[in-house]
Amino acid sequence: MDILIGKIKQKNNPTVVGLDPLLDYVPNFIKQKAFKEYGKNFEGASNAILEYNKGLIDNLYDIVPAVKPQSAYYEMYGYEGVKALYETIKYAKEKGLYVIADIKRNDIGSTAQAYAKAYLGKTQIENESLSAFNADSITVNGYLGVDGITPFINECKQYDKSMFILVKTSNHSSGELQDLMLNDNDKVYIKMAKLVENWGKDTIGKHGYSQVGAVVGATYPEQLKELRQKFKNMFFLVPGYGAQGGGASDVAFSFDSNGLGAIINSSRAISCAYKKENCSEQDFAGVARREALKMKKELNEVLMG
Amino acid sequence: MDILIGKIKQKNNPTVVGLDPLLDYVPNFIKQKAFKEYGKNFEGASNAILEYNKGLIDNLYDIVPAVKPQSAYYEMYGYEGVKALYETIKYAKEKGLYVIADIKRNDIGSTAQAYAKAYLGKTQIENESLSAFNADSITVNGYLGVDGITPFINECKQYDKSMFILVKTSNHSSGELQDLMLNDNDKVYIKMAKLVENWGKDTIGKHGYSQVGAVVGATYPEQLKELRQKFKNMFFLVPGYGAQGGGASDVAFSFDSNGLGAIINSSRAISCAYKKENCSEQDFAGVARREALKMKKELNEVLMG
Repeated sequence: MDILIGKIKQKNNPTVVGLDPLLDYVPNFIKQKAFKEYGKNFEGASNAILEYNKGLIDNLYDIVPAVKPQSAYYEMYGYEGVKALYETIKYAKEKGLYVIADIKRNDIGSTAQAYAKAYLGKTQIENESLSAFNADSITVNGYLGVDGITPFINECKQYDKSMFILVKTSNHSSGELQDLMLNDNDKVYIKMAKLVENWGKDTIGKHGYSQVGAVVGATYPEQLKELRQKFKNMFFLVPGYGAQGGGASDVAFSFDSNGLGAIINSSRAISCAYKKENCSEQDFAGVARREALKMKKELNEVLMG
Repeated sequence: MDILIGKIKQKNNPTVVGLDPLLDYVPNFIKQKAFKEYGKNFEGASNAILEYNKGLIDNLYDIVPAVKPQSAYYEMYGYEGVKALYETIKYAKEKGLYVIADIKRNDIGSTAQAYAKAYLGKTQIENESLSAFNADSITVNGYLGVDGITPFINECKQYDKSMFILVKTSNHSSGELQDLMLNDNDKVYIKMAKLVENWGKDTIGKHGYSQVGAVVGATYPEQLKELRQKFKNMFFLVPGYGAQGGGASDVAFSFDSNGLGAIINSSRAISCAYKKENCSEQDFAGVARREALKMKKELNEVLMG
């Protein structure tokens, strides 16, 4: 997690911008240009979302440390969309951004290994060793236990990458399973956090955080507070800020006394800010930048609080 | 689930063949031909796995009702691999096979909707409505609760498709979370099964099974038996047969008194049988067919037993 923390300190900004490019979010002038060149099909749509992402990245890379493309919004445009995901990751990394691929993958050991190679490590093709997606970090679902986690940890160790396991998710129904009480008086999400802590215990870096972090929603500030207090070595990826309803005071609990320990995600509230402000869509990236600077200011006020 | 059940009855065979085309599994003559044409890269690898899959499908489509491509083994070859997944699904459907895309996706509602459109439904591009992957069925992880499930159910209803939610997975460490006892004396996997039952309760078809099924591993026959007895309307996708250690007597419990209620997956034991038999790799598909017929016979003996 040290690379991410280094970038957060460098930019003085614990924000990750979600890149969830549903076609409805893409400014019309970008869409029409792509449709004209490639057609109203997956190729046209994928070129449009890549162009949109590049515009956002160009206007954000010097003020935010990280971006988080959400795989679903690329997969829905078929393999062409997945190519746009690959190109987005590549472009963001070239700009010095830390890329968290939000894929929430999970499977039994042998299959988890294939995912781990795809997103964090390398794929062997005879004597060639190639990177399929080469993200810096990913999200993972831990329902299958350690077998499904170890392959990801191995790639994290080998390539100095990181991962975030779902602990307490930001959605309304997350409690349906995650908040159930176990007979040893832990809730399921606390048990999951204990597993995460144990899985990552030999990957703790110079800032005191493990390479195996946790996803904890901004929409559950009490749980965020509880988890921060109990799991000192666990870095949090915190979605749910902005469009989902979490505010700066809610996420304040996710940081340690040095102002580290968490990165806060905002997606639509930044990337679609141009729609709310009712400004020129030509200025979508400028508006996103202003919104990101506003969020940086809000978070820094809380941190100095 | 009626379409799948219809195909099972037609072929008199409750088997789904896993298509997990790790490059090591692909016969050398297919690989070398693809590498010569496209290079030792993701394009070459992806063309090799597609060729391998087509050979398997050509020799299996008249004896098995379904195939289950595991997404990880395509994603590890980048977007070209994902294109091979798309082509595999398309080819298998053209041959009349029911295709279960083993993707284990999961996310909050808005994102789950993107996945649901990608794999079961259609993606809107202006006034065009296009299918990205168009599988018949998928696997899903239910850790996030109903918000993350409803979008998939909606697509199942609209397009007469199905889904399988992870309940008790086949891997060694599945109990780490899934077997924990809740304070109401249900284990986590039983609670998950209860959620699955409730989520699917208004999608029950003419054979008495819901469109929302469950993944239950062949490696846990006691749990399989317990779940079969408790959840009469729940169709099971049962991995873990063959290479992972589950046998015909283990999966016997997954069927109802009419011999329905489950489909048993075998991947490597069929697709890589040519390696075990030490036969000509040119005959990989013929060997796979013999192995599939052997499995059909084993399962039918159990069903008649």
